[in-house]
Amino acid sequence: MHEASFEKEAHELTIVSSSLDELEKQNLDRVNLGQHVLAEFFECDPNILNSNDKVEKYMIDAALECGATIVQKCFHMFNPYGVSGVVIISESHLAIHTWPELGYAAVDLFTCGTKCDPKVAYEFLKKKFNSKKASFTELKRGMIDRETLKLAEQPFEVAEQFEN
Amino acid sequence: MHEASFEKEAHELTIVSSSLDELEKQNLDRVNLGQHVLAEFFECDPNILNSNDKVEKYMIDAALECGATIVQKCFHMFNPYGVSGVVIISESHLAIHTWPELGYAAVDLFTCGTKCDPKVAYEFLKKKFNSKKASFTELKRGMIDRETLKLAEQPFEVAEQFEN
Repeated sequence: MHEASFEKEAHELTIVSSSLDELEKQNLDRVNLGQHVLAEFFECDPNILNSNDKVEKYMIDAALECGATIVQKCFHMFNPYGVSGVVIISESHLAIHTWPELGYAAVDLFTCGTKCDPKVAYEFLKKKFNSKKASFTELKRGMIDRETLKLAEQPFEVAEQFEN
Repeated sequence: MHEASFEKEAHELTIVSSSLDELEKQNLDRVNLGQHVLAEFFECDPNILNSNDKVEKYMIDAALECGATIVQKCFHMFNPYGVSGVVIISESHLAIHTWPELGYAAVDLFTCGTKCDPKVAYEFLKKKFNSKKASFTELKRGMIDRETLKLAEQPFEVAEQFEN
């Protein structure tokens, strides 16, 4: 079992440069910054889904299992049932909402770059929640063309003061 | 402008009962617990996307604009660029990841029940980020049948102690 390691300053430029590498390597016109797995876990163990501690632990472990770097987390136990929570990772986020009374959990596994595979987290959670009926939809996020990606290689002009 | 109001104990049973009402009213076999808008905001103002304060404020305002009840929030500023953050609402969550150097933000607007319309939050954020090229995909989450929904009307047996 992994120990949760929280990294305060993570770096997203690696995601842009790995996307650019991917684009060059495969000679593509466009590349996606991220991949988003939207998982539906039905027929889960309701007592796991109603435990803030279990849900939080499994979500953190799922992030680590798929190779992500954890930045922040927040979880909330609803009265009388259900847990909502998010683990923010350097590579985007993992989110969960549970309906223990229905044995159902909606889980989002959004990762960027090539380091993490959200499907590893999907398989891990499916097992931990004892889901007997699970499915997922996968979407590409941030379809960026070559020209736009190259923009990121130029220095970014940051406004010191910003008024709106 | 709304003041952010944080409610500690929110109640998800209203979501289940409003889904059941919807199912009865429309005489459907299945109903979705939630709706999930996955928004892609391109050609945004990079200085807004690189401001933790602005991004956090607009995400909270977006939640309130669409009628959601805020439960928790967590935001993180990356070094050197980019903000990731989540607003957990009683009705699910709003999440964002920004790439200021690309003028791009990936935003998730996941709401449950019939009280909130995630597309209101989409239009609000599109305007606030000055996005000149935006699109979204909408997915239904938690497709539940009549029989399973009715399960939720029965008392849920909560295990006091849970061992795994």
